[in-house]
Amino acid sequence: MGWSAKISSRAVVLSVASSLILSAAPLAAQSQLPNLPLPEHVTPGSGSLVIDQGLKISFEGFTEPRLDRARDRFLTQLSRETGILHWPEPTASQPHFVIHTEHASAAVEALGEDESYHLEVTPERVTLRAPNPLGILHGLQTFLQMVELTDHGYVVPSVTIDDKPRFPWRGLMIDTGRHFIPLDILRQNIDLMEASKLNVFHWHLSEDQGFRMESKIYPLLQGKGSDGLYYTQDQARELIAYARDRGIRVVPEFDMPAHAASWFVGYPQLASGAGPYSIIRKWGIFDPAMDPTRESTYQFLDRFLGEMTALFPDAYFHIGGDECNGKEWDANPRIQKFMHEHQLKDDAALQAYFTSRVEKLVTKYHKITVGWDEVLQPDTPRDVVIQSWRGQESLAVAARQGNRGILSWGYYLDLNQPASQHYGIDPLAGAAADLTPEQQKLILGGESAMWSEFMTPEIISGRIWPRAAAVAERLWSPQSVTDTASMYRRLAIFSERMPWYGLPSGAINRALVQRMIGNADPSSLLVLASVVEPPKEYTRESLATYGAYTPLNKLVDAVPAESQTAREFNELSAKIAAGNASPADFAQARRWLTIWRDNDATLQPLLAGSALTQELAPMSLNLKQTATIGLDALSSLEDHKPASSTVQEQQLSELKKLKAPQAVLLDAIVPGVEQLVQASSH
Amino acid sequence: MGWSAKISSRAVVLSVASSLILSAAPLAAQSQLPNLPLPEHVTPGSGSLVIDQGLKISFEGFTEPRLDRARDRFLTQLSRETGILHWPEPTASQPHFVIHTEHASAAVEALGEDESYHLEVTPERVTLRAPNPLGILHGLQTFLQMVELTDHGYVVPSVTIDDKPRFPWRGLMIDTGRHFIPLDILRQNIDLMEASKLNVFHWHLSEDQGFRMESKIYPLLQGKGSDGLYYTQDQARELIAYARDRGIRVVPEFDMPAHAASWFVGYPQLASGAGPYSIIRKWGIFDPAMDPTRESTYQFLDRFLGEMTALFPDAYFHIGGDECNGKEWDANPRIQKFMHEHQLKDDAALQAYFTSRVEKLVTKYHKITVGWDEVLQPDTPRDVVIQSWRGQESLAVAARQGNRGILSWGYYLDLNQPASQHYGIDPLAGAAADLTPEQQKLILGGESAMWSEFMTPEIISGRIWPRAAAVAERLWSPQSVTDTASMYRRLAIFSERMPWYGLPSGAINRALVQRMIGNADPSSLLVLASVVEPPKEYTRESLATYGAYTPLNKLVDAVPAESQTAREFNELSAKIAAGNASPADFAQARRWLTIWRDNDATLQPLLAGSALTQELAPMSLNLKQTATIGLDALSSLEDHKPASSTVQEQQLSELKKLKAPQAVLLDAIVPGVEQLVQASSH
Repeated sequence: MGWSAKISSRAVVLSVASSLILSAAPLAAQSQLPNLPLPEHVTPGSGSLVIDQGLKISFEGFTEPRLDRARDRFLTQLSRETGILHWPEPTASQPHFVIHTEHASAAVEALGEDESYHLEVTPERVTLRAPNPLGILHGLQTFLQMVELTDHGYVVPSVTIDDKPRFPWRGLMIDTGRHFIPLDILRQNIDLMEASKLNVFHWHLSEDQGFRMESKIYPLLQGKGSDGLYYTQDQARELIAYARDRGIRVVPEFDMPAHAASWFVGYPQLASGAGPYSIIRKWGIFDPAMDPTRESTYQFLDRFLGEMTALFPDAYFHIGGDECNGKEWDANPRIQKFMHEHQLKDDAALQAYFTSRVEKLVTKYHKITVGWDEVLQPDTPRDVVIQSWRGQESLAVAARQGNRGILSWGYYLDLNQPASQHYGIDPLAGAAADLTPEQQKLILGGESAMWSEFMTPEIISGRIWPRAAAVAERLWSPQSVTDTASMYRRLAIFSERMPWYGLPSGAINRALVQRMIGNADPSSLLVLASVVEPPKEYTRESLATYGAYTPLNKLVDAVPAESQTAREFNELSAKIAAGNASPADFAQARRWLTIWRDNDATLQPLLAGSALTQELAPMSLNLKQTATIGLDALSSLEDHKPASSTVQEQQLSELKKLKAPQAVLLDAIVPGVEQLVQASSH
Repeated sequence: MGWSAKISSRAVVLSVASSLILSAAPLAAQSQLPNLPLPEHVTPGSGSLVIDQGLKISFEGFTEPRLDRARDRFLTQLSRETGILHWPEPTASQPHFVIHTEHASAAVEALGEDESYHLEVTPERVTLRAPNPLGILHGLQTFLQMVELTDHGYVVPSVTIDDKPRFPWRGLMIDTGRHFIPLDILRQNIDLMEASKLNVFHWHLSEDQGFRMESKIYPLLQGKGSDGLYYTQDQARELIAYARDRGIRVVPEFDMPAHAASWFVGYPQLASGAGPYSIIRKWGIFDPAMDPTRESTYQFLDRFLGEMTALFPDAYFHIGGDECNGKEWDANPRIQKFMHEHQLKDDAALQAYFTSRVEKLVTKYHKITVGWDEVLQPDTPRDVVIQSWRGQESLAVAARQGNRGILSWGYYLDLNQPASQHYGIDPLAGAAADLTPEQQKLILGGESAMWSEFMTPEIISGRIWPRAAAVAERLWSPQSVTDTASMYRRLAIFSERMPWYGLPSGAINRALVQRMIGNADPSSLLVLASVVEPPKEYTRESLATYGAYTPLNKLVDAVPAESQTAREFNELSAKIAAGNASPADFAQARRWLTIWRDNDATLQPLLAGSALTQELAPMSLNLKQTATIGLDALSSLEDHKPASSTVQEQQLSELKKLKAPQAVLLDAIVPGVEQLVQASSH
């Protein structure tokens, strides 16, 4: 049922072991928890707290309305996860939940504030203590994640937890420029950030395809640059308050000097080209860039930054700076002349000049500048924070110069990589591992990034989650927490809770699959959907033509980045190939492969009837062929009748073809079948 | 794929037939539509309009901001149902959608306003005309329901529709008193009311268990009577505007003199007992009632009604009046004395006195009184509208007195009856059929009612819909539209669209089922869930103990009122029993029964692990036993080997036991198996 039942036999072994080797106990206890991220220190108790009657919550020490709201939210969430209604008049049978807060947190949440908490659950009561409300918010989420359903009702097993984050900057960036993402979806993501203890919402607000924040000083920014799809300043203030309630900072990004065509529709005088400009309706890297040589550009940005830095209270302000191709600069004789006069030898030098001017304006408004890799130059001021899309090497270079950094390389959720791949990337690994401890402290943490070329409001949250929670663990939990199998077990639990945040649970978006085939029975299409994945990295663009208004309503848009079923099958195949499989494992593999082989017969006739599924015909056949080969190999292995090497080579060559994308999708069981075939001739 | 493909062979037959018998054509054309409710007049065209590029909408005639918002909502909904993004700059390839509105509708939507519209779809363009915006709103929904997915993309088949409602009052009542229902759920229901052309949201705002509307004059009403769960006046105004945007009136109900204990917590002087009073935490009919004998009661109500009639702009105002048991009156000597002095012979007479006093106050504020059956007395003023929970007889009595009426008997959605049962009830049938045409005009329509003893926010919408749409058709479409099979076919389509309104599609709430078994695989529990139903009418209360804060988190709360699978199986069984079945029908019945028989083996071991599923053990066994009998009978029928009458009697007696509720649930396939057994000895 719940997690404690699942690991009970293991727990017995561990409790014996831990009496011998005490130092191992915390990690062992940790790994039994369902929590994601795992807490730093865990000491299991005995018995458990039954919460079928709800909880009687009281506050001690410092209090504030934010804590009252946190309590109400906690009880609402508890009710969602259990169905237990909150009795308005506490009853005698409700266990006591005491929250003790020492003092207030900063008026504006600050980088590096104490986020620690102490949580103690016994069969009789709960005690949650923290220096300030931030730790209380985290502790409440830890408690919620430990609620489990048993044969004697909803319980939280007795435990003592001491917890704090490894990194102070744990972010999620959402690109609201390319596709506009409405506020309810942003709030949903902020709720899930709270659940996974992320603490920075990086709001990417301007792109070639859209300027999304209302400016009252320069109203043509949103007026001509957004198709009417933008956030008002009141909405921004509300979202900032919403995030603050959940212990989350909001860092805005206005990307410059490139990725800025949408600014130029209303204000062409900012640009380096002749204009006129229009909103860009496709994806890619484009030429429009601000003119760094005119004083009027800085006068404009001065007033603009004055307005935006007043709107966003956070101490950090992101100016982008990525992917300026310099083509407009190269083509403009006036700009070339300026570069010559100022001894700016190339476009990078011109951008460095621009960045230093903008950085001074940001500083004038008492904010600290954040920018992508490109803003780092030898003379970049020491307080500028570098967000790296290139890797730890950039952060190491920055740290040696004394600049702080945040890692986003490896955490690009739009690239559809498996959670394990993101999970395996540590901000202090690679080139950063060679830094001195003092230099390592300059690496503040990391940020998942979700770029939105292929994200509409109905798709984006299901692609961010649950994988962003794996990155959240990397940034919160001790560096030693690296067990991928444990992460996947807990990610599945996290995923099952996603419906309480308004998301379909982890896997396929069934509503989108149903939509693709009208009123037909979706079962066989769901079988196909369960074992295909979107193409990885930047290959999707090459497989079909996409623009800003291309409907994203096909199977590639309805499936998660990583197929849970395919991953489980591939792991099972590895076990079989390694000779470690039980008869039950063989039976499970055969059951799966048979379903996949036979599915085409049911699905194929349906596909022709809908314009959205016609292109899936070869993929359905692909799955049948892959499964057929898999069943052959499985029989060889099960019957100990090795396949001939000719057959094996033929099958491997066939599988190589079956690996190729079809209908902008990958057949995700090919790797497992390859392992079976490779093992089948031993 | 879509509806036109499904009925294409039938359409050929019909088109031949209709050239012979012209008068039959409209009804035949109607029955092919996916729409719910069906329009009044339908003339099919040839070809279809392809809308893969979206639509270019323009307005002619009268315009207003509400129409602009309706267009935006229409495009958003179209995008949800298709994934087609709305291109901000219309393109040449978008078909033209012309909306022509003749004039404004009333400033406050009035009963009986013209709601007609004319919709014409050709392969090139769409024309929608209506006298006022109400018809436009309906026509947009009709269009949305006709969008279908084909092998050449999203299309709407060519058609000309002339449509208007049969009844002017088509309502849905939601009881927000017993369980508080938050605004987002009310908005969701209003969205679905718009989709099904209902036009009155009856907001039941006060009950023994809660007073839900903010009063500024009497703040202790919500202050002491709501547990903090109430709507502010600003929220009410917003909801009224939200409903008006969708062509829906909002009629508030403040129930009096009984069902009013929550009023008395803050204002005990209103009551007939000695007090003190507290919010009632259980379900039933309770004694507290207002004191009709004191002038102070009417002074209070005068000011209260002054406040509330100003808040709610609708011309009608509901004062409840149901289920006053009179016990507090009988027990109060002062009240008894008053009755004697005023020659009020019984409690009914005293209530009539109260009603007439309150009615005068409502009239003073220029509103028309609505009340339940009990308010009708021989001297009830002619403009009072009677809402009947008792049946058409009450409405007939009212109509003969000259009072108008609304039928709710037969439309109580909380009683978990099948859609067909509600669908079969006509406001002008039964005793109302004998009225003169003039008297029949006094019957304004009907209202589905959802009382909320067993409804939490997570359950209520899935229980109201899709069945409320069947009632909507009864109230909108011509009286001759009565084909239940057609209704169920279209109800399934309506149900599949519910995800675009934030609801799980029609059937089981999978998230609630998953929650019941923690992290275990829910498949076998879903199989059980697919063929059980909640108990009907008022039997649930007798099968378990419920209070206002009893968690509603068991299987009975996760399943719809009517099992679609069981209904289909029972229909198939009837076909087999009647000797009309094909070999494929037998195969389908066998497939189903085999799954149900074998499910217990997988499910039974899981049930013990969760406190929420333990009680399901006998029901899982029940299903196995029912299916086993069904398979026996099926074999007899298929092999033409009649069962002995002894076996048959034994099986029927066994089935009678299997019909009894288990774990507050009914095994919904028993009726089908009974039919098979009854046929098996012929």
